[in-house]
Amino acid sequence: MMDLLVIKIGGNIVDDKYKLRVFLKNLSKLKCKWVLVHGGGKIATKIAKDMGVESQMIEGRRITSEAMRDVVSMVYGGLINKQLVSDLQSLGKNAIGLSGADGSLINAEKRPVKNIDYGYVGDVESINKEFLKGIIEMGLCPVIAPLSYNPKWGILNTNADTVASEIAKAMAKYFNVSLVYGFEKAGVLRDLNEPNSIIAEINIGNYEELKTQNVIFDGMIPKIDNAFSAVKEGLKAVYICDALQIDLMEQEGARLGTKISL
Amino acid sequence: MMDLLVIKIGGNIVDDKYKLRVFLKNLSKLKCKWVLVHGGGKIATKIAKDMGVESQMIEGRRITSEAMRDVVSMVYGGLINKQLVSDLQSLGKNAIGLSGADGSLINAEKRPVKNIDYGYVGDVESINKEFLKGIIEMGLCPVIAPLSYNPKWGILNTNADTVASEIAKAMAKYFNVSLVYGFEKAGVLRDLNEPNSIIAEINIGNYEELKTQNVIFDGMIPKIDNAFSAVKEGLKAVYICDALQIDLMEQEGARLGTKISL
Repeated sequence: MMDLLVIKIGGNIVDDKYKLRVFLKNLSKLKCKWVLVHGGGKIATKIAKDMGVESQMIEGRRITSEAMRDVVSMVYGGLINKQLVSDLQSLGKNAIGLSGADGSLINAEKRPVKNIDYGYVGDVESINKEFLKGIIEMGLCPVIAPLSYNPKWGILNTNADTVASEIAKAMAKYFNVSLVYGFEKAGVLRDLNEPNSIIAEINIGNYEELKTQNVIFDGMIPKIDNAFSAVKEGLKAVYICDALQIDLMEQEGARLGTKISL
Repeated sequence: MMDLLVIKIGGNIVDDKYKLRVFLKNLSKLKCKWVLVHGGGKIATKIAKDMGVESQMIEGRRITSEAMRDVVSMVYGGLINKQLVSDLQSLGKNAIGLSGADGSLINAEKRPVKNIDYGYVGDVESINKEFLKGIIEMGLCPVIAPLSYNPKWGILNTNADTVASEIAKAMAKYFNVSLVYGFEKAGVLRDLNEPNSIIAEINIGNYEELKTQNVIFDGMIPKIDNAFSAVKEGLKAVYICDALQIDLMEQEGARLGTKISL
């Protein structure tokens, strides 16, 4: 099977023109096939404000009203997505922007209302594997906005980390998939005050120990748990790394952030 | 060769929820392959205003500043395009939204500055025929936003009528293409006060006469001239019709608006 990278970048890169340029330049150096999933960034909040649409957050999650759904459709599916596609085209990569509705790529259920009504938020149900495989086999580089689709509710807002891991797991049927979470640090650090103390590898052998030693704690635990569950579903590895160093992936003798595998 | 319809709808349909629903429902009844090109609508102007971006028009053409380019990227490429794709998916059509940057579909030159600087406006140079053919052959229904792409300037704003005719002419290499301009009337009328006075057919035989009789005049002349030039470049026919009646195209014994052919 051929290698495929599924790379997720967050708002901190999308919002920063310089970082974004470096990331895309390094991404375009890669020889292997890849899929890019992008997050939203602060620009959605700013545009919502300009339009008089209130940004409501409950427990760190965005509540997506109908008006806010329009904003994220525009900003994620239009502004950010088309900008990334255009930039990649100018770097010689034949990119294609996709949302969850395009080709019925990301089918979701609207999140059920329990204590909180999240509004137009989608929980991923299935990925149209054959469609995405076909796009990749045409030599195209998919750039995916974190929007899913439901036949009754239409476009739904979905967490970009989740979109990336669902896409990666679905593509494991056809490719040797590695999932890369690009963030602002060079990897998972042994000591937060030491930028060079990157943990090179987390596997089932050392994970419990790292938790006991309190090296991995708080918000990092669910992230690593998710990475393990993805690896168990057939991924080769998950990397947590500085997105700007993505070109290290194919550099002889280089290491890319923290590698999580079985 | 297989039949292909390239259908253009304007802002008057995109802006009107009821008309849009009827159009999409009728479109989804068609058995032949089709490509939909959509215009912008008043919503771009409204959102620009909300965001404090000035809408400047010179001689009926929108001047596209950098800020306005962001607005049309969002509104055409995101909001309207994803809404259409989502609605078509819910009607059982496997739609995919595309801008000119996606798959390098619509390559354009930035309009040269002469008397007027139109800003980020693109004049179509070439269509990536093989890409669009590949998408159609995958069984997908392309929904195209009127945005073109240039490697130096990025996303450019382009007239939707022009996008539709360039796409139609390019696809004539592989398909029996008919181009449909959907507008608010049932066809070209012999008498503007008589909605039923549709001219069924305009061809080289009767065109001069219709112009001499002042039946076709003013703004309609360049439209018909463009239609003839498209037909000369290999299209089967151009239809000017009520978009809401698109299903008449495949109805036994029915006639769709005004047909322009050689």
